[in-house]
Amino acid sequence: MLSFENHESFRSYIEDFVQKEIAPLAPAIESEETYPQKAHKAFAREKLFCLAMPKSHGGGGADTRSLALLVESIARVSPSAALLVFPTNAVMRTIDLTGTQEQKDRFFTELSQGDMAMAFCLTEPEHGSDAFDMVTTARKENGHYLVNGVKSYTTLGSNARYYLTFVRTGPRPKAGGISALLIPKDAPGLEFGPPEKKMGLHGSMTSQMYMSDAKVPIENRLWDEGEGWKVLTRVANPMRVWGAASLALGTAQGLFDTSLAHAAHKKKKSQATGFTLADMAMKIESCRAFIYKVCEMVDKENYSPKKIETYTSMAKCLAADTAMEVSELAGRVLGTGMMQADSQAARFFCVAKGIQIFDGSNQIQRLIIARNLQKSGL
Amino acid sequence: MLSFENHESFRSYIEDFVQKEIAPLAPAIESEETYPQKAHKAFAREKLFCLAMPKSHGGGGADTRSLALLVESIARVSPSAALLVFPTNAVMRTIDLTGTQEQKDRFFTELSQGDMAMAFCLTEPEHGSDAFDMVTTARKENGHYLVNGVKSYTTLGSNARYYLTFVRTGPRPKAGGISALLIPKDAPGLEFGPPEKKMGLHGSMTSQMYMSDAKVPIENRLWDEGEGWKVLTRVANPMRVWGAASLALGTAQGLFDTSLAHAAHKKKKSQATGFTLADMAMKIESCRAFIYKVCEMVDKENYSPKKIETYTSMAKCLAADTAMEVSELAGRVLGTGMMQADSQAARFFCVAKGIQIFDGSNQIQRLIIARNLQKSGL
Amino acid sequence: MLSFENHESFRSYIEDFVQKEIAPLAPAIESEETYPQKAHKAFAREKLFCLAMPKSHGGGGADTRSLALLVESIARVSPSAALLVFPTNAVMRTIDLTGTQEQKDRFFTELSQGDMAMAFCLTEPEHGSDAFDMVTTARKENGHYLVNGVKSYTTLGSNARYYLTFVRTGPRPKAGGISALLIPKDAPGLEFGPPEKKMGLHGSMTSQMYMSDAKVPIENRLWDEGEGWKVLTRVANPMRVWGAASLALGTAQGLFDTSLAHAAHKKKKSQATGFTLADMAMKIESCRAFIYKVCEMVDKENYSPKKIETYTSMAKCLAADTAMEVSELAGRVLGTGMMQADSQAARFFCVAKGIQIFDGSNQIQRLIIARNLQKSGL
Amino acid sequence: MLSFENHESFRSYIEDFVQKEIAPLAPAIESEETYPQKAHKAFAREKLFCLAMPKSHGGGGADTRSLALLVESIARVSPSAALLVFPTNAVMRTIDLTGTQEQKDRFFTELSQGDMAMAFCLTEPEHGSDAFDMVTTARKENGHYLVNGVKSYTTLGSNARYYLTFVRTGPRPKAGGISALLIPKDAPGLEFGPPEKKMGLHGSMTSQMYMSDAKVPIENRLWDEGEGWKVLTRVANPMRVWGAASLALGTAQGLFDTSLAHAAHKKKKSQATGFTLADMAMKIESCRAFIYKVCEMVDKENYSPKKIETYTSMAKCLAADTAMEVSELAGRVLGTGMMQADSQAARFFCVAKGIQIFDGSNQIQRLIIARNLQKSGL
Repeated sequence: MLSFENHESFRSYIEDFVQKEIAPLAPAIESEETYPQKAHKAFAREKLFCLAMPKSHGGGGADTRSLALLVESIARVSPSAALLVFPTNAVMRTIDLTGTQEQKDRFFTELSQGDMAMAFCLTEPEHGSDAFDMVTTARKENGHYLVNGVKSYTTLGSNARYYLTFVRTGPRPKAGGISALLIPKDAPGLEFGPPEKKMGLHGSMTSQMYMSDAKVPIENRLWDEGEGWKVLTRVANPMRVWGAASLALGTAQGLFDTSLAHAAHKKKKSQATGFTLADMAMKIESCRAFIYKVCEMVDKENYSPKKIETYTSMAKCLAADTAMEVSELAGRVLGTGMMQADSQAARFFCVAKGIQIFDGSNQIQRLIIARNLQKSGL
Repeated sequence: MLSFENHESFRSYIEDFVQKEIAPLAPAIESEETYPQKAHKAFAREKLFCLAMPKSHGGGGADTRSLALLVESIARVSPSAALLVFPTNAVMRTIDLTGTQEQKDRFFTELSQGDMAMAFCLTEPEHGSDAFDMVTTARKENGHYLVNGVKSYTTLGSNARYYLTFVRTGPRPKAGGISALLIPKDAPGLEFGPPEKKMGLHGSMTSQMYMSDAKVPIENRLWDEGEGWKVLTRVANPMRVWGAASLALGTAQGLFDTSLAHAAHKKKKSQATGFTLADMAMKIESCRAFIYKVCEMVDKENYSPKKIETYTSMAKCLAADTAMEVSELAGRVLGTGMMQADSQAARFFCVAKGIQIFDGSNQIQRLIIARNLQKSGL
Repeated sequence: MLSFENHESFRSYIEDFVQKEIAPLAPAIESEETYPQKAHKAFAREKLFCLAMPKSHGGGGADTRSLALLVESIARVSPSAALLVFPTNAVMRTIDLTGTQEQKDRFFTELSQGDMAMAFCLTEPEHGSDAFDMVTTARKENGHYLVNGVKSYTTLGSNARYYLTFVRTGPRPKAGGISALLIPKDAPGLEFGPPEKKMGLHGSMTSQMYMSDAKVPIENRLWDEGEGWKVLTRVANPMRVWGAASLALGTAQGLFDTSLAHAAHKKKKSQATGFTLADMAMKIESCRAFIYKVCEMVDKENYSPKKIETYTSMAKCLAADTAMEVSELAGRVLGTGMMQADSQAARFFCVAKGIQIFDGSNQIQRLIIARNLQKSGL
Repeated sequence: MLSFENHESFRSYIEDFVQKEIAPLAPAIESEETYPQKAHKAFAREKLFCLAMPKSHGGGGADTRSLALLVESIARVSPSAALLVFPTNAVMRTIDLTGTQEQKDRFFTELSQGDMAMAFCLTEPEHGSDAFDMVTTARKENGHYLVNGVKSYTTLGSNARYYLTFVRTGPRPKAGGISALLIPKDAPGLEFGPPEKKMGLHGSMTSQMYMSDAKVPIENRLWDEGEGWKVLTRVANPMRVWGAASLALGTAQGLFDTSLAHAAHKKKKSQATGFTLADMAMKIESCRAFIYKVCEMVDKENYSPKKIETYTSMAKCLAADTAMEVSELAGRVLGTGMMQADSQAARFFCVAKGIQIFDGSNQIQRLIIARNLQKSGL
């Protein structure tokens, strides 16, 4: 894999892969709170953890739209599985965009084996929605940072190779006091809590990460000390469209697939069901068109960061709401099929709600969009 | 208890009881798939299982609106707990409305001890939405019915004293071939499956009920053979307003309570949160006014059965949709508080979806309303 | 008229009257921007302008719910006609609630003839949403107030007998500086602009009212100088439920009537149309139940003013949104029947939008509700 | 004009033109029920009536997306003005796609002068939603068709050069009996009624067209006799995306422009207003992305007609609903600014409702989408 000619051929490739390798695992992944090792291995075989790594280092060199296709296609059958490849590629892309040549060589050489996942650690237990408030600290000592604090909702739990962690190297609550460190899993002083119990996304294990004088080499810092917030915004906004938004799109599509199939099996055709399917399709397709358009905006690189922020925030908020609305409509088609705890529909319904809330809740996105619109228009 | 002067004093009584006795149990009830024995005992102590039993037999003699208050007030902290008293009182009321004097004396004497629950068995595994299609049969033999078939979503599982069960005594799919039997728990040939895994309402254990030549005394049949459908419609429609609709209303209110409390703890007040709370309150209060109005229609007894059907269907559909919409809005206020599997908000969110689907899905209710409206107007 | 035994008999009476006397005039009333003299005369004949006048003075002594029935029933065929009796009775009630015995005797004796309308003048051209900002002034001189300023959206234009006008007798923007004057139509210095062009409600002529040293007897002031804001809040909040909210309810009902009749004439029955009618009915009936409940709260007089404010604001906001949503659904049923400028559906569609905006826009209502909820709960 | 390099440069050109030439005329166009001669002349000067004519004949040779930009950009300030260039270019494109070489030479030579408009005549007074039911007939006599019947909602009234008219040449209600004729304005036996009174779109004059033995040369028939329905579906579906859908998009954008500008002038910034603007922007931008994507599908020509039908129906339905929802949100921002009959917001609000209804109501589109989805998926 990792060689494809255009988006259509990549979509076709990835959909085949997902049908063959991930779909059979999906029910177990979504219902069990354990790390999905089989899916991990399948992704590793296909080098999908390296999709965002530049070709020069042996990666897929994927553009934003391809990453979106990856996440969407996996989420269509298993949103939790999509959350293995998403953070890994997000950190990969962060290294590519903000790392020095030395860092790229060092990290990519190791990661190009293809079987390592990576995680993104930002949220803290008491500071969910406002990252500026973070209290995890790092102080320099003998060529290392000693990191102390707790991060929550750490994707992948203890199963990642590196944790891109945002920490305070300066006073609170200034953005300027934040730095970005790549903490290796085997850093002394690093521990993980048990899996957090979430309403959905069970296979996307998250846990709290405890750092107590966790020792991190200074050369694992991206950009200068105090520039962590810049690293974050450089990557986090674009990430939102091929991450959370595409996850939501895939989730919505999965619910539509199930609903359409369910309706096809009914002997009595109902006009109300037909109209419901039509409304689902319209919402999904307009959301998809918008996501791809925003991906192209990101890839074109001739838009201002503010513009990108506005549009990626819109993509996240819209897609999450679309997934929620679609799951609402799916309930009308599926009936009791959505009440059973282990049904795909029930799982995806809970996922949709989760996406509205995480990665900057939709209300936070609206705040951002409103502020940017009122400053500089559409 | 069981003596109160008016609806306000009953509301005040039941809210106190719920706060003291049920609220502390609620988190466990909603998260564990076991029968809530402690809640059962508290209800028994207060004789709340007998609220719908006529006073002449030692019951509460409650009107529809009081039953609605009961269900709503319990659901506000624990929808699953509300589903202990609801079906019991529903069957109680069915006996009162359709039983002979002998039956009332016999059943009420036993039930007036106050500690027995009862269940309602209609749905079958393959015939969820169309009750006419039921295939469970009963044939007479030596003064008994021998019942064969499977019912699903039997509330209370094996914990009820009697199961009001609808069976075929005549050919399918005619309504005329259906009869209503009160099957005692200790009937030979009666067995129960394991708890069904539902998305929410964990404490409202449901299971499949297997009847294989289950032996039921003929004198446990309500009304004549073949009149089961009439029994059902005589009771099921009014039941919908103080049952499913009130359950939904309580669920919505519980989500509002939590959201308001959460907002009160925030230092920064947000206008968007205030508007969201306002929208929640409006939806809940109009739903509540409508439910109470329909309860009064039921109690007044001067409306045609069709009219009652229209309005109880509207109450069920509207209340379930209200609960769903309110849970959607609650997510905007609560944020990550709704993502944790064990949070009240996550539980209630799943309950809201369930109510849209069970007891005649909202789409079925719309079918009924549409048909009645087009025949005889509002 | 003016003698009826209960709400049902009043509803029956008023619906008959409306069908016979107002319905035939409705198309002309809604499309022409002239004062509806014929409707005025019909209302006068039935003494409906005096419905809120106490019986002791020869009026109808109507409670809030009866006034709501009046407005709703007229609005069902002609929202503009409802806006003749609404402001008149609103001012009538204001005199009853805040006038001295002398004022009641004086005004009611004159008004008991039954053929005089009255208007409510609050809004100013530049200060639509914030009444505190008003700049119209009144200064005392020789036993009169001399009033200067401009009011806009004065209902009834020059066709009222008295204009209850809120003016500044003290500094801006304090509430304390506002006083309430009943300005007679023939006051020197009073003039009216041409009818304002509104999107709908054409028969409810409104115009700007120009006061240039308009001379008003001091004894036409309600309560003390500076207590105008108290007069307003004493009356305006309850008014909202039997005024704007009931107007919206009637408008929604009128759209439902037309839609149901239209669907009845179609040969091919469509399930989607049936579902749409069901959704319209549910929205209308829950709104109606809520409005009647709030009317009863107002009449019971044992609720705090804050509580009344919360609930009347909810009634106004909910009813206006209901009318808008119902008109949206009506368009699905009526199709091209809603595109023709002179169709009832097109008129009512525009009315619905208007009600969302006037009498305190729905966004203002949400502000009020949010503030009260966060202070003192539901 | 008519030479531009890419879509961005065309958008920039057309937006400039609209700002300079159409915006100043817009208020009059939208409020007066007369033919907008000045806008007609401006369009003629720029040869915008010929945008869809192939370059080989002197036209603009525009692709679908450019036509969409044309309609959207004009509708943003004046939806009625957009309805001058839309039907003209629609008929132009029909001739290009279905005409013989002789027909193209004949019609395009005349039309390349650039100052002639054309209209589309399908709907009949009694057969709004089902075109198969049409009763207008054409019978051959001496090398001409004699056409008899009435068409309603004929855009442009008597101001077009040619009327593409669908008539029955065979028995009802078969599709096979329909033929497509280009009726010249000066055909004997052709008359026009007064302007129809519509709720909005006043400058887009429409009237009934009466044909009584109207004489039309046989060589003005597109394709064979009885192939009119094929002509219609060949063109009507793609037309829907750059016509009605783009009209709706422009209307929504115009409402957003006004709302954003209004909010910018407020001293007190309101979070609720900001959130409302954010929601408007998200709806508009996802709708826009979807419309452009569907335009590209049409232009690529490698999709099946069914697929194109599904997606153009989705585009029409989604865009019209978007415009309606956006106008609903605009009312929250604009307040009384939307109540004045002559305000842009009030006009556009009425236009949005119109677009939901005409060109195949949204309910008809849902029927089509539902049928296609259930046959062949997304």
